[in-house]
Amino acid sequence: MDYSNSFLKLPNNTDSPWVRTVRLAKPTLQDNTADSDRLISALKTDLQTDAVHIDLDLIKKLPDRLRKWEYNLRCILFKDRRRWLVTGVAGVNDARTFAGLAVDLGTTKVVLRLLDLSDGRTLGESGFDNPQLVVGPDILARIHFTENAGGLERLNELIITGLNQTVRDLCRSCRLEPQDIHAVTVAGNTAMTHLFMGIDPRWIIREPYIPLINKPGILKATDLGIQVNDGARVFIFPNVGSYFGGDLIAGIFFADLHQQSDAAILVDVGTNAEVVVGNENWLIACAGAAGPALEGGVTRMGMTAGPGVIDQIKVDATTMAFDIHTIDNLPPIGICGSGVIDLAAQLFLSGMIDIRGRLVPAVCGSKLKIVEGLSHLVVVPAENSATGADLTISQADLDSLIRSKAAMYTILETITGSVGITPHELATFYVAGTFGSFINPESAISIGMLPDLPRDRYQSLGNSSLGGAALALESDSYHDKINQIRERITYLELNVNQDFMNRFSAAKFLPHTNTKLFPSVKVVQAST
Amino acid sequence: MDYSNSFLKLPNNTDSPWVRTVRLAKPTLQDNTADSDRLISALKTDLQTDAVHIDLDLIKKLPDRLRKWEYNLRCILFKDRRRWLVTGVAGVNDARTFAGLAVDLGTTKVVLRLLDLSDGRTLGESGFDNPQLVVGPDILARIHFTENAGGLERLNELIITGLNQTVRDLCRSCRLEPQDIHAVTVAGNTAMTHLFMGIDPRWIIREPYIPLINKPGILKATDLGIQVNDGARVFIFPNVGSYFGGDLIAGIFFADLHQQSDAAILVDVGTNAEVVVGNENWLIACAGAAGPALEGGVTRMGMTAGPGVIDQIKVDATTMAFDIHTIDNLPPIGICGSGVIDLAAQLFLSGMIDIRGRLVPAVCGSKLKIVEGLSHLVVVPAENSATGADLTISQADLDSLIRSKAAMYTILETITGSVGITPHELATFYVAGTFGSFINPESAISIGMLPDLPRDRYQSLGNSSLGGAALALESDSYHDKINQIRERITYLELNVNQDFMNRFSAAKFLPHTNTKLFPSVKVVQAST
Repeated sequence: MDYSNSFLKLPNNTDSPWVRTVRLAKPTLQDNTADSDRLISALKTDLQTDAVHIDLDLIKKLPDRLRKWEYNLRCILFKDRRRWLVTGVAGVNDARTFAGLAVDLGTTKVVLRLLDLSDGRTLGESGFDNPQLVVGPDILARIHFTENAGGLERLNELIITGLNQTVRDLCRSCRLEPQDIHAVTVAGNTAMTHLFMGIDPRWIIREPYIPLINKPGILKATDLGIQVNDGARVFIFPNVGSYFGGDLIAGIFFADLHQQSDAAILVDVGTNAEVVVGNENWLIACAGAAGPALEGGVTRMGMTAGPGVIDQIKVDATTMAFDIHTIDNLPPIGICGSGVIDLAAQLFLSGMIDIRGRLVPAVCGSKLKIVEGLSHLVVVPAENSATGADLTISQADLDSLIRSKAAMYTILETITGSVGITPHELATFYVAGTFGSFINPESAISIGMLPDLPRDRYQSLGNSSLGGAALALESDSYHDKINQIRERITYLELNVNQDFMNRFSAAKFLPHTNTKLFPSVKVVQAST
Repeated sequence: MDYSNSFLKLPNNTDSPWVRTVRLAKPTLQDNTADSDRLISALKTDLQTDAVHIDLDLIKKLPDRLRKWEYNLRCILFKDRRRWLVTGVAGVNDARTFAGLAVDLGTTKVVLRLLDLSDGRTLGESGFDNPQLVVGPDILARIHFTENAGGLERLNELIITGLNQTVRDLCRSCRLEPQDIHAVTVAGNTAMTHLFMGIDPRWIIREPYIPLINKPGILKATDLGIQVNDGARVFIFPNVGSYFGGDLIAGIFFADLHQQSDAAILVDVGTNAEVVVGNENWLIACAGAAGPALEGGVTRMGMTAGPGVIDQIKVDATTMAFDIHTIDNLPPIGICGSGVIDLAAQLFLSGMIDIRGRLVPAVCGSKLKIVEGLSHLVVVPAENSATGADLTISQADLDSLIRSKAAMYTILETITGSVGITPHELATFYVAGTFGSFINPESAISIGMLPDLPRDRYQSLGNSSLGGAALALESDSYHDKINQIRERITYLELNVNQDFMNRFSAAKFLPHTNTKLFPSVKVVQAST
């Protein structure tokens, strides 16, 4: 038989094994192999495999199509472990796009990226607020909700309906149909993955904290209610346990942490700080509460990044004048996490707060106000703000921020210490997520939240969960690699013991009680 | 972990690998493997495999069940090539039966056997007329019917609905529920298999006669519309091509033809005569039109076997008196295929017909009547028949029978000749089907339809298609063996050439022009 191989050889990691042209020998009286088996046999030769599967629904369409196409066709493929799956067929001259969809399944926000399966090119991107927010803002509330009758089904329906709607909109904007999507990858935390699959998450939050599934593997989109091509398969990222989900494994995969010769670190700051340290030989992970203050959710004027939100601040150490930057340069309405860190760093470097984070009246001067018996520093006076009111940060806000930054640094010290290194020995420091995209490492170092590494060791990854999900669509070998990453991760339980508390206390100073750890931080300390 | 293996070791081929007890270590803070992965991991160890799959629907049921059962359970398994499938779970003390269903998917009749998957024991058997008979009696009519809009769907619905109804009835009679059936095996001819799967059969009857599928493999019962356990899988026997179906491969498998050291033959006589000759080294198959007269369908008084139908006849060579046996000893209403062969043999041996099959008036005497200008022999006079009319066989009936028996013998000569042996060298002669159950080899040899072998070489297989389907439920290695049988079969096209016609002409005599081929046939020939 004559099988031609049109496997697109593209440079680097953009090869696509998913779209192949197959030219079948036409049947004759001497060669009466059935249509379906003829195609499978050709693909086995082409793919050098002994396992090729075609769904019954697709088999039903073969007789007419093969004859119309004179036995020349393109096959859209996916892979389930060792088994290749034919998810669709098309004529060789069909100009249609075969798309893949990567999904970052966030607790708060879900982000989608549409790719061309034949070359890995991004076709479009879209996001939507997780519709489960109507049930509860956090995972805990949602898991409790599943214990009501119909609760799990409701949460599952919310996320699936939301996804289907956004898929339709995203496809339309790319001039595609949902039917053009043949492969989907999904990275989310363990609980979100359970809710997405419609499986019971309740044991995740009860000792001994057992998920129902660690390795969902490959599922049929139709079995999950996802409205894309009927033959499409969904790869769901595996998790390590209740507190270390597929989103983080996607991040490790995207950062290539598992293949580096020198130890590197990946930090994803959300409600929790999730941290992985590792190299090509080992991977160690932990998670701890460090986040709220860092997300902008704690300060009274805090909010998530958006137009008019303060994301950068400079304080002139001589005049104490604030140089404020807002997103889209609109009048300021509030401050996001990276803005708060900038602000704290600048206040500290200019002496407006002391090494314990206390506002220094002598330096703050007229910027200081007492509101409801509590010291507030006016960052933007009412006349300059978009809200018509002062934008202020209170002593309580600063205390909260300092606890968060101390928790973060303690976690970093603890996890690196567990493998016998210090934070300063990390060759690369990857910061993931929205936080990572906006944070100024200089500021985070100034307040002693992140270690005082040479600045070029810091790398912002952006949405590494989405990045990992998209990357997983690029090679048939990647699902195995992702599972290997999972197998290699050692999860470190953060025991809040005396040692941890001692470290935490030391880290509650700016930048740290041990200033030798932060040689680059030069402080102008006013007398208090 | 503590995995116990309750694999039932039973004697001979009644081992069942399908029901296993698994005792899982309960999760702890130190061992937080997810529920589903915990079960899969235990089964991998137990089954010594690296591929175990659980459907999403079953995963959803695990959290409550595992906790209720304290992590001890029985798994009901099936296998899809190298991949083990968990089709159901039960508590270790659950007394429920896990059943398998074997189906012989006949064009005319469908027969079901229910088995206990844990020990291979038969629980019950039932059959029903193929409801597709309302569309057409034969495959050709039905395939043409599929070319009407909705025709394929209608035929598929008829067979699936009929099957589901009979499954319900059969289960009820065995005090089971259809949900207790976890595995199904189906053996049918190629066209029936296509109609059963709801896939287009039209290219089967058009040159170059290509089925849509040769190896359907394992499918989900729900995908086929079969109402048994939701997790149940269906193994559909493979075919070699349009004219050699899964029913025959089931027959070879059941007869063990593929493992015999000496060449043996399997003959299945229906509308077509289907013949396989082979041993452990080779298998050669062919099919040819030989049947109608042998099914009782040709003679005017012919009918399929049933109460009151003549199935055996003896003629006293001295008195020419007929000693007639009917099924259930009821007054005779007609004659079935085996009865016709008995009759022809007895007529020949007693000299009432000559070597060309012509009625001999001098010997037949008053039994001969002329009806509508054609000679008829009265087998049962009106006063003794249940119909109130003479039961007769006409000269035309006899001519038709002789053409059929000649075709059969010619096919046997041709297929054995193609591998350089004669029919007389066959170590075992398996006769399958209803025909095989009732036929008297002595009679078939007397008229030269079957070769003159020592009588103990003849073996009746009964319903070998059903037998093969049931056997396929007994071991996880059998699906591979069945596919190996398929791969080994060489299909011989019966070219009706001059050589074939010469053989056919010689075989149209009783028992044959070359009487040396039938030394055991002792004829009392009257002078004509």
